[in-house]
Amino acid sequence: MNDKINVIAFDADDTLWVNEPYFQETEKRFCALLENYAPHHTLSQELFKIEMQNLHLYGYGIKSFMLSMIETVYEISGGTADLKLIPEIIRLGQDMLQHPIELLDGVKEVLDALKGRYRLVVATKGDLLDQERKLKKSGLLDYFHHIEIMSDKKTDDYCKLLKHLDCAPEQFLMLGNSLKSDVIPVLELDGYAAHIPFHTLWAHEHYEGNLEHPRFLQLTTITDILDYVGH
Amino acid sequence: MNDKINVIAFDADDTLWVNEPYFQETEKRFCALLENYAPHHTLSQELFKIEMQNLHLYGYGIKSFMLSMIETVYEISGGTADLKLIPEIIRLGQDMLQHPIELLDGVKEVLDALKGRYRLVVATKGDLLDQERKLKKSGLLDYFHHIEIMSDKKTDDYCKLLKHLDCAPEQFLMLGNSLKSDVIPVLELDGYAAHIPFHTLWAHEHYEGNLEHPRFLQLTTITDILDYVGH
Repeated sequence: MNDKINVIAFDADDTLWVNEPYFQETEKRFCALLENYAPHHTLSQELFKIEMQNLHLYGYGIKSFMLSMIETVYEISGGTADLKLIPEIIRLGQDMLQHPIELLDGVKEVLDALKGRYRLVVATKGDLLDQERKLKKSGLLDYFHHIEIMSDKKTDDYCKLLKHLDCAPEQFLMLGNSLKSDVIPVLELDGYAAHIPFHTLWAHEHYEGNLEHPRFLQLTTITDILDYVGH
Repeated sequence: MNDKINVIAFDADDTLWVNEPYFQETEKRFCALLENYAPHHTLSQELFKIEMQNLHLYGYGIKSFMLSMIETVYEISGGTADLKLIPEIIRLGQDMLQHPIELLDGVKEVLDALKGRYRLVVATKGDLLDQERKLKKSGLLDYFHHIEIMSDKKTDDYCKLLKHLDCAPEQFLMLGNSLKSDVIPVLELDGYAAHIPFHTLWAHEHYEGNLEHPRFLQLTTITDILDYVGH
């Protein structure tokens, strides 16, 4: 790792705190509500298809997920399902929006070790209000110099972030659980990126292939980063 | 107006381009879909009540509006409405998300006159992806030094924006159509604010009372601002 690293940016969902398991848990409940119409895997497939169709219009986040679940009820039942399912699905989504924050192991230790020595940043996709609320509830807000909630995490989006932070790519290190969103676009800009796998990943974030790059670090847990930048 | 103004920030919806009339038009169509269950004014009232109940969870924007319309179908019909209404409402929302941008009169003239002489900023509430898309479609992106999409526009939110822009309140002028969101919180910070009325205003933005303040400008149209800062 070079000495010039100045900004360390963290993905939020499934990097700082648990997220995807709540989506999967909600999807299970959603499938249970509709099990008279189709088996779970068919429902999951239809929901994912509808989510992907809507992604360019809705973007990421829980409200988008709610709207796609509601659309799936109609599609999967051919319009015959009971309207009473709708408030149950709204409730599932509202429960997600109010879920407590569960920090991942090692996060506080890493932030404590890095605070004051680097500009720490959160760079996350998702819904503006929901991500702000999660940050507040997480108790981590004071660690961060800047919070960037992004509509997407492509190379261009990181380019804007770096410009905004007045940070050269070789001074930037991004940490996250998604190779597709947190690692590859940053390496493309000649920044540094570290991958911290999380046990579960949304299908949309799947990346096939091996990654080798001089500015890429494959870590096992978030605390491993301290071997590179902590001392 | 003092000479120190450095940043001029514009609200977007109903200040740069038409917005609220599309919500009202959609609400009319929504009420027409449900006219077997209740008269329009009852439906509008119920929808507004549900929107206000959900605001703290969903925030502003079209997806929130879609979810509240869907919830209203269930509530107003006591669960008896046909599920077939749901895709019709989803379509209404998706049409809104894809609506062309209609710039308001005088906007380009004002931006052309001010560009290069002030740091021009957009400060808007709403959904992240939707507002970014509208800005791109508007063709106005190049005028702006910074775009701030905010989950709310209270005094604290403007405080963060000013800090972020490294701008003192007496160097900041905000223009917008909502006294509640664009003017009062900025005056509270000792910034300058100008009100440009738009012919229609969402009930949530209504403000009762007269406003007199040495840093407040009541304008008739956006081009009036050039009498204060344009020359």
